[in-house]
Amino acid sequence: MAGKPQVVIAGAGFGGLWAAREFDKQPVEVLVLDRNNYHTFQPLLYQVAAAEVEPEAIAYPVRSTLSRSRNVHFLMDEMTGLNLEDKIIECRGREIFYDYLILALGSATNFLGVAGAAGHAFQLKTLEQGIALRNHILACFERSALEPDPERRRRALSFIIVGGGPTGVEFAGALHELIGGMLVHDYPLIDPREIRVVLLEACDSLLTGLPRKLQDYALQRLEKMGVEVYLGTAVSRVTPREVFCGEGVLIPTETVVWTAGVRGESPREGWGLPLSPGGRLPVEPTLQVTGYPGIYAIGDLAYLEEGRRPLAMMAPVATQQGTAAAQNILRKIHGAPENPFRYHNLGNMVTIGRNKAVASLLGRSFTGWTAWLIWLGVHLFNLIGFRNRLLVLINWSWDYFCFDRTVKLILPRDSREQPSPGRFVHCRKNSAENTAWPLNVLRIERKKRRGAA
Amino acid sequence: MAGKPQVVIAGAGFGGLWAAREFDKQPVEVLVLDRNNYHTFQPLLYQVAAAEVEPEAIAYPVRSTLSRSRNVHFLMDEMTGLNLEDKIIECRGREIFYDYLILALGSATNFLGVAGAAGHAFQLKTLEQGIALRNHILACFERSALEPDPERRRRALSFIIVGGGPTGVEFAGALHELIGGMLVHDYPLIDPREIRVVLLEACDSLLTGLPRKLQDYALQRLEKMGVEVYLGTAVSRVTPREVFCGEGVLIPTETVVWTAGVRGESPREGWGLPLSPGGRLPVEPTLQVTGYPGIYAIGDLAYLEEGRRPLAMMAPVATQQGTAAAQNILRKIHGAPENPFRYHNLGNMVTIGRNKAVASLLGRSFTGWTAWLIWLGVHLFNLIGFRNRLLVLINWSWDYFCFDRTVKLILPRDSREQPSPGRFVHCRKNSAENTAWPLNVLRIERKKRRGAA
Repeated sequence: MAGKPQVVIAGAGFGGLWAAREFDKQPVEVLVLDRNNYHTFQPLLYQVAAAEVEPEAIAYPVRSTLSRSRNVHFLMDEMTGLNLEDKIIECRGREIFYDYLILALGSATNFLGVAGAAGHAFQLKTLEQGIALRNHILACFERSALEPDPERRRRALSFIIVGGGPTGVEFAGALHELIGGMLVHDYPLIDPREIRVVLLEACDSLLTGLPRKLQDYALQRLEKMGVEVYLGTAVSRVTPREVFCGEGVLIPTETVVWTAGVRGESPREGWGLPLSPGGRLPVEPTLQVTGYPGIYAIGDLAYLEEGRRPLAMMAPVATQQGTAAAQNILRKIHGAPENPFRYHNLGNMVTIGRNKAVASLLGRSFTGWTAWLIWLGVHLFNLIGFRNRLLVLINWSWDYFCFDRTVKLILPRDSREQPSPGRFVHCRKNSAENTAWPLNVLRIERKKRRGAA
Repeated sequence: MAGKPQVVIAGAGFGGLWAAREFDKQPVEVLVLDRNNYHTFQPLLYQVAAAEVEPEAIAYPVRSTLSRSRNVHFLMDEMTGLNLEDKIIECRGREIFYDYLILALGSATNFLGVAGAAGHAFQLKTLEQGIALRNHILACFERSALEPDPERRRRALSFIIVGGGPTGVEFAGALHELIGGMLVHDYPLIDPREIRVVLLEACDSLLTGLPRKLQDYALQRLEKMGVEVYLGTAVSRVTPREVFCGEGVLIPTETVVWTAGVRGESPREGWGLPLSPGGRLPVEPTLQVTGYPGIYAIGDLAYLEEGRRPLAMMAPVATQQGTAAAQNILRKIHGAPENPFRYHNLGNMVTIGRNKAVASLLGRSFTGWTAWLIWLGVHLFNLIGFRNRLLVLINWSWDYFCFDRTVKLILPRDSREQPSPGRFVHCRKNSAENTAWPLNVLRIERKKRRGAA
């Protein structure tokens, strides 16, 4: 057993898991490392943030996916360093020797140097970030329900999404529908006209990379729903209470969601490996890190050009590269020549709200309901584990037929989300102002405004 | 509208929610307060801790349950004080006037003055505590999988449950089955003989209050499963690394789950209201707090004797009292005399692992499979919301037929759960000890031990 080559796969995302599966029953000992004990189905992360599915529905314990394999093992630990000379990975808890190493650490948010963004904007890269954003949005509504100051109320009810890529577009649509559905049922005291969902994009189109027709459809669709879309609008600063765009325009808000950039999940110094400007590792067509035989990089972390354009940071690229890197390592072990990686692009798709999407598949463009059905099928098919698929389907169907979201839990509760004392009106019985609750005050106010409108 | 009496219900547990429902469409304005935005189905909390159901399956957003009512409102805030003179509840964010007040704040863990218990034992009263315990148990397994030191391994794999009441018995059974199921599939490197589930009870029987026959059945069943049960064993001290029982006996452990006592969820000074020794509010048979007309207490927080014994702190008492208190307030408003509360005891039931239970129903005793079916039906029926019921049923069925638990997520990840550097063997290639991973070392060790046994 000590004679078998030892392969370490750092990261149990799409790339890492697909590589691990390829090694099953092969003459290697494989160790998969991840800082979490679960794999996250990232393409649906925005739905967790929009309280559309529960976190458990898009997460799957890595051990369960690997439990049938006798030569592929899992370890929950985080890679913290790399000793290239001794072929050792440094983790928090130990050091691990490797013969072959697959780096599949994924990507992190790139704040593009915008002041305050790293400190004050929400991200959508990990399950914990998705849950934190969900909790924050729900807490904004709870706070606004009895907030008598209209300025504070409007600030808490303005949700700014930065970045018009797939994540930004999908989250904007889902958030707008969460709000529409929640409002009707749960917050009768909040005036819908005080709520804003704003999507800011620095380029002059959404979904760059997709055909023009689909970009236009997405824009029209979002605007028809009621999302405010501002193209050619770059964010210059984020604070806890506002976001600054372009030439001095500011929007008061407590919620800035940053989807405008990603970079490779690697430390700045790259563990001694070469880094591309986006924090990614340049790889040969074989997926071997340039200049480092025995070390491979795949998925979002790998930088590889095809037809002079870098491959996109998305799940299908990662899964295909995972399989390819594992096959190349096995070929190398068997003394066979390695194969260059070629991406089979089946298409791109982006959902926009309840039952509309855009899809570019095998060179054809689809929009609306047809595209949404394609999107639904592809995503359900790809969710790992039958049970998760079933759960997600139940959630979606329920949501779809009942216009209700039942995953609206603020959990875990963030003590910082509690309203601070003195922020709301005090309603002592004997005060001159009122003898009733702000509830009633607000209700009357709202009726007046409606009557005036 | 200002003329309608204003009722505040503090707490959206079983008592509070059932009271709120009774006020629907009545000539009162009702405000339900809770520090969370969801209701927790506490009888199944232990299943969250045992990774048997997801947290979302036993939590339900309060606003969704109340959204059909026009005169019952919800506010997420925490009651922090009570101004009896001005009839004002103090919260974190505001002060709220009431004409009638229903205190339904539930109960908290009572550590019975045992040293170290409050600081180092896990609790099972809130959803967040249930999730924290689940994460901790799973992390113990992750850490043990590659831990070469047998003493540390055994300490991490010893799970001590203090208290042989319903929660302790149900959790012990569920935990033992979680471990049995997980071990087979996910942790082939852990020797099952190193794992202990220990149940400590200070009295000389489990489930005091149930018929003797059922107590004996529960004990036999747990012991047959492999749970170590120690009766007449009081805990004297808890530290982060061990628990001390009786006369100096200590068990090395990192996991002590405290289910041995509850007390009313009230501050020590009782907001100026009288308190029973267990931190509960003594109430009249009408459920009015003794000496305070207009203030009612229900559920775990209320202290009421029936036939000289205090009513138990459990869900059926709370729901019945919730309804009764609301009816009494309405009677008072209408000038009718209030009715004394009488508890309709339909029975008690406690599940013990996968498909066994004990049930005492309408004076008859049931054990085993029959009792389990009764238990299952009653709990499914009582779970609020059809969708939640469906989710729980899917989880249970999956679990039941597949012997697998798919909710095994360590989420949110606790950074303290990361193994500290230097705690595990370092396995440099060039060290004298080994050239392989601790994985293999452990595997070989385990084979040896098995061969020796």
